[in-house]
Amino acid sequence: MRIEVVAVGTELLLGQIADTNSMWLGEQMAAAGVDSHFHQAVGDNHTRIVGALRTALARADGVIVCGGLGPTQDDITRDAIAEVMNVALERDEEMVATIAAFFEARGRQMSPNNARQADVPAGAAVIPQTRGTAPGLICPVGNKVIYAVPGVPYEMADMFERAILPDLRQRMADDGDEAVIVSRVLRTWGASESGLAEALQARIDALDAPGDGGTVTLAFLASGIEGIKVRLTARAPSDVAAAALLDAEEAAVRAQLAATIGDIVFGTDDQSMEDALSLELTSRGLTLGLAESLTGGLMASRLVNVAGASSWFRGAVVSYATEVKHDVLGVPDGPAVSEATAAAMADGARRVLRSDVGLGVTGVAGPEEQDGQPVGTVFVGVAPAKGATFVREFHLPGDRPRVRQYATISALDLLRRHLIHDDS
Amino acid sequence: MRIEVVAVGTELLLGQIADTNSMWLGEQMAAAGVDSHFHQAVGDNHTRIVGALRTALARADGVIVCGGLGPTQDDITRDAIAEVMNVALERDEEMVATIAAFFEARGRQMSPNNARQADVPAGAAVIPQTRGTAPGLICPVGNKVIYAVPGVPYEMADMFERAILPDLRQRMADDGDEAVIVSRVLRTWGASESGLAEALQARIDALDAPGDGGTVTLAFLASGIEGIKVRLTARAPSDVAAAALLDAEEAAVRAQLAATIGDIVFGTDDQSMEDALSLELTSRGLTLGLAESLTGGLMASRLVNVAGASSWFRGAVVSYATEVKHDVLGVPDGPAVSEATAAAMADGARRVLRSDVGLGVTGVAGPEEQDGQPVGTVFVGVAPAKGATFVREFHLPGDRPRVRQYATISALDLLRRHLIHDDS
Repeated sequence: MRIEVVAVGTELLLGQIADTNSMWLGEQMAAAGVDSHFHQAVGDNHTRIVGALRTALARADGVIVCGGLGPTQDDITRDAIAEVMNVALERDEEMVATIAAFFEARGRQMSPNNARQADVPAGAAVIPQTRGTAPGLICPVGNKVIYAVPGVPYEMADMFERAILPDLRQRMADDGDEAVIVSRVLRTWGASESGLAEALQARIDALDAPGDGGTVTLAFLASGIEGIKVRLTARAPSDVAAAALLDAEEAAVRAQLAATIGDIVFGTDDQSMEDALSLELTSRGLTLGLAESLTGGLMASRLVNVAGASSWFRGAVVSYATEVKHDVLGVPDGPAVSEATAAAMADGARRVLRSDVGLGVTGVAGPEEQDGQPVGTVFVGVAPAKGATFVREFHLPGDRPRVRQYATISALDLLRRHLIHDDS
Repeated sequence: MRIEVVAVGTELLLGQIADTNSMWLGEQMAAAGVDSHFHQAVGDNHTRIVGALRTALARADGVIVCGGLGPTQDDITRDAIAEVMNVALERDEEMVATIAAFFEARGRQMSPNNARQADVPAGAAVIPQTRGTAPGLICPVGNKVIYAVPGVPYEMADMFERAILPDLRQRMADDGDEAVIVSRVLRTWGASESGLAEALQARIDALDAPGDGGTVTLAFLASGIEGIKVRLTARAPSDVAAAALLDAEEAAVRAQLAATIGDIVFGTDDQSMEDALSLELTSRGLTLGLAESLTGGLMASRLVNVAGASSWFRGAVVSYATEVKHDVLGVPDGPAVSEATAAAMADGARRVLRSDVGLGVTGVAGPEEQDGQPVGTVFVGVAPAKGATFVREFHLPGDRPRVRQYATISALDLLRRHLIHDDS
């Protein structure tokens, strides 16, 4: 099964926004064993969208077209698909009522333009919206297919998972093309990409060697502030066989990393550092309070993304001004970027927020040095549930936003490792 | 002059890396008045690269192909171009010597594979490297052209600016086509895309009408948690003429929006809501303190991104647990999601953080309702520098992260508007 992605929007061609949709779809399709040989981007122009769709259908079994389903006169993907299908657009009155209800629920009036979103090429099936107003479409073209989804990433992703992927799987099963490709990601923090590659060279060589079946591959994916991902990909006749291959390889990789670099795997797949920390806190029945300086609320905003955070996250004091450190957290006078301040912030957070554990972070995000410390210097204090408060010093690379993000994940990882090793 | 971008690399199709090159090239070409109607991405496969190049040449005056010029067996863009040109590859011995010298200067030996980078399709001109080993190519194909550049972004950008852009400008001058295209973005918060389109329909019709010169166009760009952007694009003989067109159109659009919807334009181009708020606070010499509940630190983390935030941002209390609202902020007993709590949070933030203005946000991010309030209900309290504390209630759409993000920008916008209208 070969699917081409066509991203619609003049803003993509003008470089005004990044085409993250095509990237995301490429990754999802690869994981599902769907080939994708080409991606295209095209502007908001009827003739060119029609041309891009025809080019794509000529060289693939189907197309996912993203964008151009909105309510404005710019949004002409529906019209272009109707031309490619050689059918008329028909207004779906049930859909009009659904869209009107969406606006009504928000105390707003639907504008007449929004009714255009209920126009459906004759013969197409609708993918209902769950998050916005623009429905998606499944449009048969001979024995091929055009899937149309909105360009808003989370609406696109929802429709892909809910409607397009199941439809693709059915088509693949009908074709007898049922090899599955399954990936698993091990997420690491604290090692470089070349360090990981060196540690795992023996595994990579073993997988490449003939006779091994060649059914698992390893790849590294530097993910910036999320660390480095090690992706294991298995190709096998069934989900069960693929899972068995991945289980064996994951165990081998973890053992090799633990033996050479240490405890750097914090999670798998979509598990974030905050998810991993949440598990350690919850299993010990501990609550957490934060004192943030250079991170400015980033740590707290990551933690509240974890489902059920309210059972263990008490809150944070963002002490951006020095006086707030003194007044609210009771940090004594002295340089703001120092080991002593980080320790006092952690103690202050634990006391003021009445949590079991306190975590305090201070440092220099840049662009200027501060308190004689260079940009990237960060002190993380941990006030644990038992034992003495301790501080670790980090030297982090990058510009202002990056130092903040690296400081955030480094601090969360420090507490995670402390809980696993010293507080179990 | 119409140029198509073709990005080469299987990793792009698999979603393993983002295609930032096409985005960057699109932006540069738009600024130079070069049209780009399509972008393509294609894997490391000879037949498919040849197909993508032929498709591109059929619908444009030229192609910029990025990637596949490296030293490995995967790197086959040179071979594909030679096939499209219908010529042989010839090894450029001077180039071999240059590449060998590059390695020697770094104390390394050139591998035999690297000599492949000196293979040049007969009739092509070389773009010398200044930063790596892979030279670029300028390849005539009839009266059209293929430019080939490495996929490494800073090598690509250097060659584009140094060799491709001058070549394009010369071709455009030869054709008598010297127009520039300049865009300006007006950023809005508080209106729907369809509402904006309706308010500006008269402008769009006027621009489309024949006789108007057709040199400015309007487009809408829904940007999720950043609001909706209105993009004005001018095509004119010079930068000065384009700026004059944009100034006139911006004034007309602002006047029309102010008359029909209200004060929804908060900035232009890269100016974010926090930048806009920072300007209003700074010009009045006011400091700000926050009390955040459902937003969990997001507001603070956006504010600290503004350069110079330390002169006006005091800090925040993230009162995720109810007890923190009582203990730290002095919020009286009662439902956490209520007008009274938002007001008390704003007052508490102003008092505890010793700021001039306090902003407090409480609400229901979901997935469950709370205190009898449905998901998406948000109360924002403003404790102003002068006058009484007031609260506004919002009903925001979306899932948990979205409600948080919308609450953040809504709260910042509420304070921005208050400062402009009631505190000037």
